[in-house]
Amino acid sequence: MDTYCQIVLAARPKGLPTPADFRLESGPVQVPAQGQLLLRTKYLSLDPYMRGRMNDAKSYAAPIELGEVMEGEVIAEILVSRHQGYREGELVQGRTGWRTHTAVPAEAVRRIATGGNPPTTALGVLGMPGFAAYSGLKVIGQPKAGETVVVAAACGPVGSLVGQLARLAGARAVGIAEGEVRRAYVRNELRFDAAVDHNAARFSDVLAEACPDGIDIYFENVGGSVWNAVLPLLNRYARVPVCGLITHYNDTEPARAPPVAETMLTILRRSLRIEGFVDSEFAAEHYDSFLRELIPLVRSGEIRYREDIAEGLEAAPRAFIDMLTGRNFGKSLVRVS
Amino acid sequence: MDTYCQIVLAARPKGLPTPADFRLESGPVQVPAQGQLLLRTKYLSLDPYMRGRMNDAKSYAAPIELGEVMEGEVIAEILVSRHQGYREGELVQGRTGWRTHTAVPAEAVRRIATGGNPPTTALGVLGMPGFAAYSGLKVIGQPKAGETVVVAAACGPVGSLVGQLARLAGARAVGIAEGEVRRAYVRNELRFDAAVDHNAARFSDVLAEACPDGIDIYFENVGGSVWNAVLPLLNRYARVPVCGLITHYNDTEPARAPPVAETMLTILRRSLRIEGFVDSEFAAEHYDSFLRELIPLVRSGEIRYREDIAEGLEAAPRAFIDMLTGRNFGKSLVRVS
Repeated sequence: MDTYCQIVLAARPKGLPTPADFRLESGPVQVPAQGQLLLRTKYLSLDPYMRGRMNDAKSYAAPIELGEVMEGEVIAEILVSRHQGYREGELVQGRTGWRTHTAVPAEAVRRIATGGNPPTTALGVLGMPGFAAYSGLKVIGQPKAGETVVVAAACGPVGSLVGQLARLAGARAVGIAEGEVRRAYVRNELRFDAAVDHNAARFSDVLAEACPDGIDIYFENVGGSVWNAVLPLLNRYARVPVCGLITHYNDTEPARAPPVAETMLTILRRSLRIEGFVDSEFAAEHYDSFLRELIPLVRSGEIRYREDIAEGLEAAPRAFIDMLTGRNFGKSLVRVS
Repeated sequence: MDTYCQIVLAARPKGLPTPADFRLESGPVQVPAQGQLLLRTKYLSLDPYMRGRMNDAKSYAAPIELGEVMEGEVIAEILVSRHQGYREGELVQGRTGWRTHTAVPAEAVRRIATGGNPPTTALGVLGMPGFAAYSGLKVIGQPKAGETVVVAAACGPVGSLVGQLARLAGARAVGIAEGEVRRAYVRNELRFDAAVDHNAARFSDVLAEACPDGIDIYFENVGGSVWNAVLPLLNRYARVPVCGLITHYNDTEPARAPPVAETMLTILRRSLRIEGFVDSEFAAEHYDSFLRELIPLVRSGEIRYREDIAEGLEAAPRAFIDMLTGRNFGKSLVRVS
């Protein structure tokens, strides 16, 4: 009989998680019941939202309990099907967590729909991160030709798509990314109009130079000092979809950010719209058009993406910590089998 | 020949304006040219936005230059008409400033349209402040039956209408007002569901008790410590129309407010929408329906308002300073003649 491995939440992290906050467990693989599927995980997706689930705090989703399996979406192969709608060998995706094998009701997963693109795109550019970028930009950002769109973490699965979609809408796309290699990728491969480094000595000035007409859309996925540099550049009627604030997910005390009054005054003086969202809010209305529009663009290479793949489930905690500190270069995945 | 008086900006205020920042001037009344009207001001409107115009800072409108007449909307009587569309004795309104007499092109004014309500309502509940309340609540706030709407400066021309319109929409209206007399007015005359005092010892707790189901709309017109108390009470999908931040208009250094990160995190976690606006943005689309809906409601007494009237143009600086410090009780007006 096969053995499963899984990674559970061992302790609630104080600040940045450490490997000790995770625990690897194993045991005999379950036999699927009638109506269930036995899955073998092929790829595990690592995403910033998971950090929030590790806290015992009020959010849009319940926290992971101590001792529970870490949450996460996977691509898995069906080892055993006890549901007439699925057969062995098919690939499915679902939120089955950080584990090698799982027996789940068939309703807990769905077939991968990438239209011939690699299955891993279902976790990135054609999955949740891609839809967050697409829906936040479309519903809240609403880019128009000639506008300037700024996004941080520009090599990541959200930021890279935000900038590319902005460019396709005729807007000027400015990406924020760390180091010369990532910036070259943003400019040359993703074809943003400009790429700036948030570690630059005079970052505010560098950003201002990259945005000579100000900023019409700032797609917020990082927070921290980037917001301080963006705020004075926002044009009248600028829109700020707030998709993530990864800089703050490991804060152990209130961030040493400027007072909120400056932000509120700017909101008032420039008629800004700042709106938080979770991608799932927009799924009913926009998910179908997302796939319909993006699948051919990815297939043709018009929309590009990059993956940063760690090997083996046991590598997941380190890869997750690396992603939280911005060391990933592309969509963070773990190849589980 | 008649003599006019006017009040000009003598100095840019540092913090709260003082009487020395204003200067009273006089001179012979102009003779109106062909196409012009000679107006005698009856009422001058005092509004918080004027404080911003006294600074030499970037905003949605240009600053008043030193030595220029203070900006403001008035109700005036036509003393001499040299335009065929108007006759002597008619009442008009326009932004002619802090002065007793003015000769202006007829295009600079418009007839008062209060549908039989007192002319001063054209500066308050049926004027700019009323439209700011109506449009901010309708376009951004979008109150639904059973929701909770919170507004500060609840006796003022904006706050009082926000709460009354919220009540008419079936929402729970909670007003913030200083002192027992104002709070009684908010509850008994304006018929809000609750009124709380921002100077209460445990204001955050008092506000939370008045909002047992959280806050769905916070109509922001004050800023400062009220925002800090509101933020943790905002429900998922809450809307925050930002109409004013009077607490901060006299800041001489960055406010000692909490860091912006807490606000941004709450925006993200609860999918908040925070949006600044200037009433004029919504005028083309909503001003007609505003007057059509509000005129009969004011006439029938269903919508109530209160005016705080100072006597004589020379009283305007003091009345303006009183309004900025929240000492007014109702819409601030100056009876000029």
